[in-house]
Amino acid sequence: MLRRTEYPAAIRNLIAQLRQMPGVGPRSAERIALWMVRTRTDQPEQIARAVTDTRHSIRPCNLCGFFAAGEICEICGDSSRATELLCVVEQPTDILPLEKTGVFRGRYHSLGGKISPLDHVAPEDLRIKELFDRIDREKMSEIIFALPADVEGEATTNYIVDLLKHKPITLTRIARGIPAGGGLESADELTLSAALSGRTKL
Amino acid sequence: MLRRTEYPAAIRNLIAQLRQMPGVGPRSAERIALWMVRTRTDQPEQIARAVTDTRHSIRPCNLCGFFAAGEICEICGDSSRATELLCVVEQPTDILPLEKTGVFRGRYHSLGGKISPLDHVAPEDLRIKELFDRIDREKMSEIIFALPADVEGEATTNYIVDLLKHKPITLTRIARGIPAGGGLESADELTLSAALSGRTKL
Repeated sequence: MLRRTEYPAAIRNLIAQLRQMPGVGPRSAERIALWMVRTRTDQPEQIARAVTDTRHSIRPCNLCGFFAAGEICEICGDSSRATELLCVVEQPTDILPLEKTGVFRGRYHSLGGKISPLDHVAPEDLRIKELFDRIDREKMSEIIFALPADVEGEATTNYIVDLLKHKPITLTRIARGIPAGGGLESADELTLSAALSGRTKL
Repeated sequence: MLRRTEYPAAIRNLIAQLRQMPGVGPRSAERIALWMVRTRTDQPEQIARAVTDTRHSIRPCNLCGFFAAGEICEICGDSSRATELLCVVEQPTDILPLEKTGVFRGRYHSLGGKISPLDHVAPEDLRIKELFDRIDREKMSEIIFALPADVEGEATTNYIVDLLKHKPITLTRIARGIPAGGGLESADELTLSAALSGRTKL
C-alpha cells in the first residue's frame, strides 16, 4: 500500500487555517502557506503579530460601535464634530464609506445588524437601547437613517422611527435613486419608482 | 481642515501586513482584516499561531530540500522507497505534483533554482554539490531530470548531465509533448517539434 506523500502536518494545518479567511480558497491558501514557509524575510512573523495585536487592541467603540483602539473611537472622540447630527448605520464597516464622501460631519451609530425575524434577529439583539440612551443624553436635532435599502433595513428604520416620532427631532433617510453613472435601462423597477417619487425640484 | 477618518492604526497595519501575502490585494486584505477584527471565534488567533508554529518547525530536508518537520523529510525517511532512483526538480514545490501521479516511487532532489546568468544564479548557488554528495554516497541506477522545459531548465540539466555522463548511471529526462487533453491547434511549435521527435512506438 502506497501512502500518499503530503506536506508536513504543520503546513497542512497552516493551509487549513488560512482557508478560514474570507475569499481565500484552497489554492490561494496553499500558495500563501508555501510563501510563508519559504520566504527569507520575517513578514510571516509580522503578519502573525499584527493579527494578535489587532485582536488584543481593537474593540467596538462604547458609543457608536465603530472600531476603536480604546473605549471611544476617533469619530466620537473628535470634539470638532457636530454632536446634534447622528447617522444610524447597520454595520461599523458602513461608516468609512460615508466618511469618504466628506459630506457628513456629525456622528454615527452602528446597530450591529438589522431586524430580521427569519434570521432570528430581534430589536433587542441590536444596539437600539444604546441609541436611545444617546438620544436622551446628547442633544440631537436630526437623525439620518442610512440602513440598507432592503426589506429588513426598511423594517428596522420604521421600527426606530415609530419609537422616536413623538420627540422634537427631525428624522430623515438617505435618498434612493439612480446610482451615479447608472443608466435608466440598468435600473430595476423598485429603484426607478423610488427615484420618481423622490424627485427633487430644479 | 477636515482630517480624513480612517481605521485605527492597528487595523491599518494589519491590512498592510496581509497585503504582503501573495495574491492578496488591497480589497481582500481589508476584507480579511475586518473579518479578523469582528469574528467572535478565535480563528484569527489560531491562524497567527499556525503561522508562527510553521515558521518554527518547518525547514528544508537536509537531503532533498523538501519541506521537513525535522532534519529529514517524510520521503527521504521512507525506507520502503527505491533509493537507486532519483528525480531532480527545481523547487521543493515541484515534488508533490510528481508524487500525486503515484508513478514514481524513488526519491527527489530539489536544486532550489535553475542556472540563470541573467538572474545571477550560478551552479554554485544551487544544491548541486549536495546532489553529487548523494550520488557518491547512495548507489543510484537512474537519475531522472524533471526541470522546467525552458532555456534555464535545459541549461541546468545539460550542465549536470555533462558532469555525470562518465558515471555508470542512466540519465533520463521527463518527456516533452502534447499535454493531456490538449489539441494540436493549441500547441506551440516547440511543443509540437518535441512531441514529434519524442514519438514512441505503438
